[in-house]
Amino acid sequence: MARTGRRPGNADTRQQIVDVARAQFAEQGYDAVSLRAVARGAGVDPALIHHYFDGKSGLFAEVLQLPLDPATVLPAVLSGDLDRLGERLLRFFLELWESPETGPRMRAAVRAALSSEQASARLGDFVVREVLGRLADRLGSDRALLRATLTGTQLIGLAVVRYLVQAGPLRQASIEQIVAAVAPTLQRYLTGRLPTDRTDTAEQG
Amino acid sequence: MARTGRRPGNADTRQQIVDVARAQFAEQGYDAVSLRAVARGAGVDPALIHHYFDGKSGLFAEVLQLPLDPATVLPAVLSGDLDRLGERLLRFFLELWESPETGPRMRAAVRAALSSEQASARLGDFVVREVLGRLADRLGSDRALLRATLTGTQLIGLAVVRYLVQAGPLRQASIEQIVAAVAPTLQRYLTGRLPTDRTDTAEQG
Repeated sequence: MARTGRRPGNADTRQQIVDVARAQFAEQGYDAVSLRAVARGAGVDPALIHHYFDGKSGLFAEVLQLPLDPATVLPAVLSGDLDRLGERLLRFFLELWESPETGPRMRAAVRAALSSEQASARLGDFVVREVLGRLADRLGSDRALLRATLTGTQLIGLAVVRYLVQAGPLRQASIEQIVAAVAPTLQRYLTGRLPTDRTDTAEQG
Repeated sequence: MARTGRRPGNADTRQQIVDVARAQFAEQGYDAVSLRAVARGAGVDPALIHHYFDGKSGLFAEVLQLPLDPATVLPAVLSGDLDRLGERLLRFFLELWESPETGPRMRAAVRAALSSEQASARLGDFVVREVLGRLADRLGSDRALLRATLTGTQLIGLAVVRYLVQAGPLRQASIEQIVAAVAPTLQRYLTGRLPTDRTDTAEQG
């Protein structure tokens, strides 16, 4: 790396970037923060942030101590047959929570994100942009972002009940039982008939 | 009230009951606490707790500052046509969160309940016993408690995304749009075909 008068990359610099980013995300929200502004605040070259974190989504994942960056892992899940996307998303999501490596960090991140209005709003911006937005792009259909968001409601509700509240029958259910019961819900939100008002629903029977 | 040597009912006594109950629920969980033990701890007659709180469910609702006691309000929602129960539950649930009186307390209670493992477990016991248990009794079907719990995942996920995280498209959606999209999910969990393994799901296509 050419000497620019800015700080060279090392562990302290990396931590400095994370600290500046945490403050800016907290103050301005996910969408309003630019990597350029974080770089300026930390006194580093923006390229260094890309080098460490693979972009804004990865930097935010680091700030929230998320176990992974959606920008890195989602493309593989989203590729492939749209008719089985509900099940693929669900299995990927459950694996994140079940794994001894990522599960505890998912619990901690979601608890922290739901603890206050400000924290929730910050996570909301991020999830809409980096998770639901990518899912909606993959769908490419009418009301794709609403479909993606409905899918998100069922996934997060499942996680809250099974992994945070740990309510009886769902704590004990097997992955296959959960997939069998819930994948059809996700698939309907993703690609199924989505009535726009109650009359529609009634007709559907 | 006859003089028994125990404290007479007044505002201080009421608060004393709540304080003792809070400590016991926190220590032992919802299921393990008895009204008799709370009464003993507060030095009052158990009948006084019934008088103030209409039973254990109402006392817990008071401790958590829930806007209402499920034991009081659920029977009306659960009565009536089973084929429309999904929509009735959903409208009742949304109204709780939309109302300027109960909405803020729902948000505060759910945030508090999800903030720590212990708080989540306490709420979990209560919800399984007093909400999902009642719903399962009403269903009276095979795997009724699993059906009720799946219904709960979709409801709480909807609340998290619309009212806590306030993510884009769902924050803006109308009640009728939400009912049209989500009521069929709930109805399927409650009374629809619920495959028990993945092979079943595949057949359902």
